[in-house]
Amino acid sequence: MAAQASSFRLALVQLAVGSNKATNLSRAAEKVREAAQNGSKIVALPECFNSPYGTQYFKDYAEEVPAETGQPGPGAGESCKALSQVARECGVFLVGGSIPEVRKGKYYNTSMSFGPDGALLGVFRKVHLFDIDIPGKQKFKESDILSPGDKLLSFDTDWCKVGIGICYDLRFYELASIYGLRGCKLLLYPGAFNTTTGPLHFELLIRGLAANNQLFVAGVSPAQDLTASYHAWGHSMLCNPWGKVVVSADEKEGIVYGEVDLSEVDRVRSQIPVTAQKRWDLYSITDRLAHNYNLLYTQFTNTPFLLLVIHDVG
Amino acid sequence: MAAQASSFRLALVQLAVGSNKATNLSRAAEKVREAAQNGSKIVALPECFNSPYGTQYFKDYAEEVPAETGQPGPGAGESCKALSQVARECGVFLVGGSIPEVRKGKYYNTSMSFGPDGALLGVFRKVHLFDIDIPGKQKFKESDILSPGDKLLSFDTDWCKVGIGICYDLRFYELASIYGLRGCKLLLYPGAFNTTTGPLHFELLIRGLAANNQLFVAGVSPAQDLTASYHAWGHSMLCNPWGKVVVSADEKEGIVYGEVDLSEVDRVRSQIPVTAQKRWDLYSITDRLAHNYNLLYTQFTNTPFLLLVIHDVG
Repeated sequence: MAAQASSFRLALVQLAVGSNKATNLSRAAEKVREAAQNGSKIVALPECFNSPYGTQYFKDYAEEVPAETGQPGPGAGESCKALSQVARECGVFLVGGSIPEVRKGKYYNTSMSFGPDGALLGVFRKVHLFDIDIPGKQKFKESDILSPGDKLLSFDTDWCKVGIGICYDLRFYELASIYGLRGCKLLLYPGAFNTTTGPLHFELLIRGLAANNQLFVAGVSPAQDLTASYHAWGHSMLCNPWGKVVVSADEKEGIVYGEVDLSEVDRVRSQIPVTAQKRWDLYSITDRLAHNYNLLYTQFTNTPFLLLVIHDVG
Repeated sequence: MAAQASSFRLALVQLAVGSNKATNLSRAAEKVREAAQNGSKIVALPECFNSPYGTQYFKDYAEEVPAETGQPGPGAGESCKALSQVARECGVFLVGGSIPEVRKGKYYNTSMSFGPDGALLGVFRKVHLFDIDIPGKQKFKESDILSPGDKLLSFDTDWCKVGIGICYDLRFYELASIYGLRGCKLLLYPGAFNTTTGPLHFELLIRGLAANNQLFVAGVSPAQDLTASYHAWGHSMLCNPWGKVVVSADEKEGIVYGEVDLSEVDRVRSQIPVTAQKRWDLYSITDRLAHNYNLLYTQFTNTPFLLLVIHDVG
């Protein structure tokens, strides 16, 4: 890879999502153009940007997502095509929020990311489904409709490696740890927290992941719509590796711009060197997808010796 | 174990630590008595409570710490004896902050915890040493003098299992994760953050560990002394499993009392069930001390099969 520039502009598009899918797609593309015109190099859309958020909507708005990376073929879904086209038109990296995906009869909450040539870089399916029940405040059960993903997604850009999660995945710091260990310096979470969990945890989780892993973390929410069945929290924000909020939105539609100065990652890691001071002799975090072993044979004996035969399946 | 009560009072003693060791010990004991008289069942002292905090002090104030748990013998150090005595006198669980320890020619930052009968329950030696250098603001290098510990400490009380860390260990969420996986519902961190890192991260780290692991977390600081060489941040605090601050101090000497209502742990874990939703198929966190295997023999072949022989050394 060529030498990487140390700073770039990131845009978080806090889109007002409505019930008309074609309108959602064209308004999202407009915002991506506006962000690019304002100098953004990476642009991120919110969770469920082509559909209202709610289990009653997912099936109606679902599309198939290409099984292969690269330029989407003629059979790709309309959201995929629209995202690829605007990424190429604007020459930006585009983290396409998420959309409801249908695949072999199952539904997923799926994020597609595109390069500045419009190629699909990869797909992330929300791995932790949002199943909460706070009596009198917020009840939601994604798993009524959705299936969880089983892969992580990180990809290289011209500036740094980027890792992707969706909303509730923010609560699982193991995911962020693994992205950090993979070398990501920016994590992007399209996420529609709500008016109960948003004020409780949205900023805390983003700041915590940023400070603990000493990297940039952003959350990208849809705008709040009190006429919808689900009230998104808004407050899209970017935090730096010190755990400080660089920029944040209120609840209304808008684009949040933040400078991602990667020299801050090096600065905090040299001044408070926790990343180098991990005690891997006492604990370990394992990316189970990096080494996927099947245990084939185990022999316990009367001695404290254990015989294992494992099969590396990739 | 008998049925556990679901709520108890915790006291965090934000002690004004001076340069006279005997005075520090007697004032600490006074505060423990005061906390017990006010109904506290678990009392915690701050990091380095018998000595000013600074690498120039550690050797002079260091003591030996018993190698065995149970009632301290006549040869135990004066801090150990004083803590055991006041725990027994007051019938409280006492997390004895930390003291500089000398052991076989090495120095440690060591926390001793005692049961209500005065027995030493266990010892925790700070495992992550505080080596930071924020130019113009805060430079400190514990590892100039101290060696790191190599064990964790959790113990049962009448209410819940408690896990111990010291100060900079707060930044290593892997430790808290392991305590959570061990079943701890309260983590206690004696910790002297400073006037640079305190406002930056003390509350963020405590709230983050509490929310992410859905358990109670407290930090216990010495009071701030601007005439000392190191300016402790103070602001001792208790956070609940929702990540909310239950109670916190300012920078002055005082005792912070917090109700630890363990039903909150169950409540948040049922309403936002992240603890049950971990995707251990995608990632894992391993307590490397729980299963200590030595790899004795590995045979790589031309096939994707791998033969391992491991030796369980406890």
